[in-house]
Amino acid sequence: MTSKDFLAIGVDLGGTNIKAALVDAFGKILAKHAQPATVNRGPDAVIADIEHAIRVVLGAHSHDRALLKGIGVGAPGPLSPSKGVVIGAANLPGWQNIALRDRISLALGLPVVLDNDGNVAAFGEFWAGSGAGDDDVVLLTLGTGVGAGVVIDGATYRGQLENAAEIGHVIVVPDGLPCVCGKRGCLEQYASASSVARRVQGGIERGEHCSLTLSGEKITAEAVASAAQQCDPLCERVWDEACKCLGVMCVNIQHMFNPARILLGGGMSQAGALLLNRVRTHFETHRWTLHNDFPRIELASLGYDAGVIGAAGLVLSTKA
Amino acid sequence: MTSKDFLAIGVDLGGTNIKAALVDAFGKILAKHAQPATVNRGPDAVIADIEHAIRVVLGAHSHDRALLKGIGVGAPGPLSPSKGVVIGAANLPGWQNIALRDRISLALGLPVVLDNDGNVAAFGEFWAGSGAGDDDVVLLTLGTGVGAGVVIDGATYRGQLENAAEIGHVIVVPDGLPCVCGKRGCLEQYASASSVARRVQGGIERGEHCSLTLSGEKITAEAVASAAQQCDPLCERVWDEACKCLGVMCVNIQHMFNPARILLGGGMSQAGALLLNRVRTHFETHRWTLHNDFPRIELASLGYDAGVIGAAGLVLSTKA
Repeated sequence: MTSKDFLAIGVDLGGTNIKAALVDAFGKILAKHAQPATVNRGPDAVIADIEHAIRVVLGAHSHDRALLKGIGVGAPGPLSPSKGVVIGAANLPGWQNIALRDRISLALGLPVVLDNDGNVAAFGEFWAGSGAGDDDVVLLTLGTGVGAGVVIDGATYRGQLENAAEIGHVIVVPDGLPCVCGKRGCLEQYASASSVARRVQGGIERGEHCSLTLSGEKITAEAVASAAQQCDPLCERVWDEACKCLGVMCVNIQHMFNPARILLGGGMSQAGALLLNRVRTHFETHRWTLHNDFPRIELASLGYDAGVIGAAGLVLSTKA
Repeated sequence: MTSKDFLAIGVDLGGTNIKAALVDAFGKILAKHAQPATVNRGPDAVIADIEHAIRVVLGAHSHDRALLKGIGVGAPGPLSPSKGVVIGAANLPGWQNIALRDRISLALGLPVVLDNDGNVAAFGEFWAGSGAGDDDVVLLTLGTGVGAGVVIDGATYRGQLENAAEIGHVIVVPDGLPCVCGKRGCLEQYASASSVARRVQGGIERGEHCSLTLSGEKITAEAVASAAQQCDPLCERVWDEACKCLGVMCVNIQHMFNPARILLGGGMSQAGALLLNRVRTHFETHRWTLHNDFPRIELASLGYDAGVIGAAGLVLSTKA
């Protein structure tokens, strides 16, 4: 057998779902299972569910167990990859210093790698998605919050204090809107899919004219993008503010990490060109003229599978 | 002989001065020479001056030439460390794609390493200054502009496009004050020593009351800090704005790089505790409460020697 024959399990633990997949050395999913994460039952029950999801996936595809290299787990931070411990995620009640890596390893009898969900998704895009072919890639996942991950020289970048790439909590408006993290003015209050929907909703509640209504379908970032394109003034303003924050953030990522690519994923990226073109336009407006060290800005391509693929990729890309 | 016996030459090329030093493996300067950089005479004349400065330093200290491991050069960016080429620095007229590394190497018959001046200074502080003992360190040099360098895992971080850590050009006020780089609202327009002096000067010219005068000694960031401490309202406002920008930037560096230490150097750091305590206060006000992954914020310690020490350190810390 060669390294191309190896397989790994990727697990994506979120506040809403537990996903697990059996992934081959080319980043292809061979089997997949998802189940609701009933996080209010506490860590023991959730860890039992993770083990169950892994066993379902292992049972769903016939393979030589000797080819199974290990399990990668992406979980909400803050966490310590080196210790394998979830320190205390906001959307996982009761998770304080839980040794998730070792507990799963013990239960399944396989080596386990743990990393931040943002890092894991970025690694997935780098390894098997839109970031392939570059060494340094930054992913922004524009969903409920703004998740992020940074790949440097082909490895997830964690920083000495192990909590790097929390770009959703970079302050873009000092003393701005309050954030769940305890700060104010974080990127995710202006440029997540939820924040865009919430800000349009707030405008309607304050009586602003809008083609979207509170009584119809739930307001989504994609609906806001469409309405913006059709010149709805409220949606246009909120969408443009979000894209401007992202365009300026891309300039700032350029000057911080100088990666070859910045990828936009998550719910907001469902708007496709309506997101990408607007962000690129703001990037062009705000970038410097001193040097042409510009990252390409593109859409992520793995969608909701980025986490499980990246988690498996962490295992499969490790030497030996 | 052991690696502890090796020596290197460090060169710091700036728009104002050329500095060269002979440095030992502990980061100690054995001989030093500085001369004005008459940059308007173009690259050939400046490179001849650099060679002269190196020869002066080599002649000033008796040592075994076999111990001389090479020459490190810090120069204004943008540049390409991998190609050894200065691409086109704003304050070096006529420098377009100049192969500085190879020209110096050929003239002196020694291996040469070229890096951005900000990176080199950060490496100096990491190797022999306030950053010693940590793996990941960020330096902000608050002088004419805001220079910066990032050390990750004990090496200068350049990014795939080789121009990372241009933190002075991170946008802190979208559409804010115009910057020499062609953008608006860059950190260095609010938090460099020059910008602080310039903004106080502008206030006085507009007739604002101020204890500093335009007819007396030149207004410096240090004088602004002192006047701010003595409750001069204009100086207090400008100084506090600069320190707030830096405090918020430290939060953002925390979320981007998550380093163990952030060091403040350059002319503004002459204000000592007046800078450090104020920046720390703003950091405390703006930081998150979700996790205690806080970098220590400290003053840099090598002063104007950081460049030559760091440049030599790049050579001396290289394996073999």
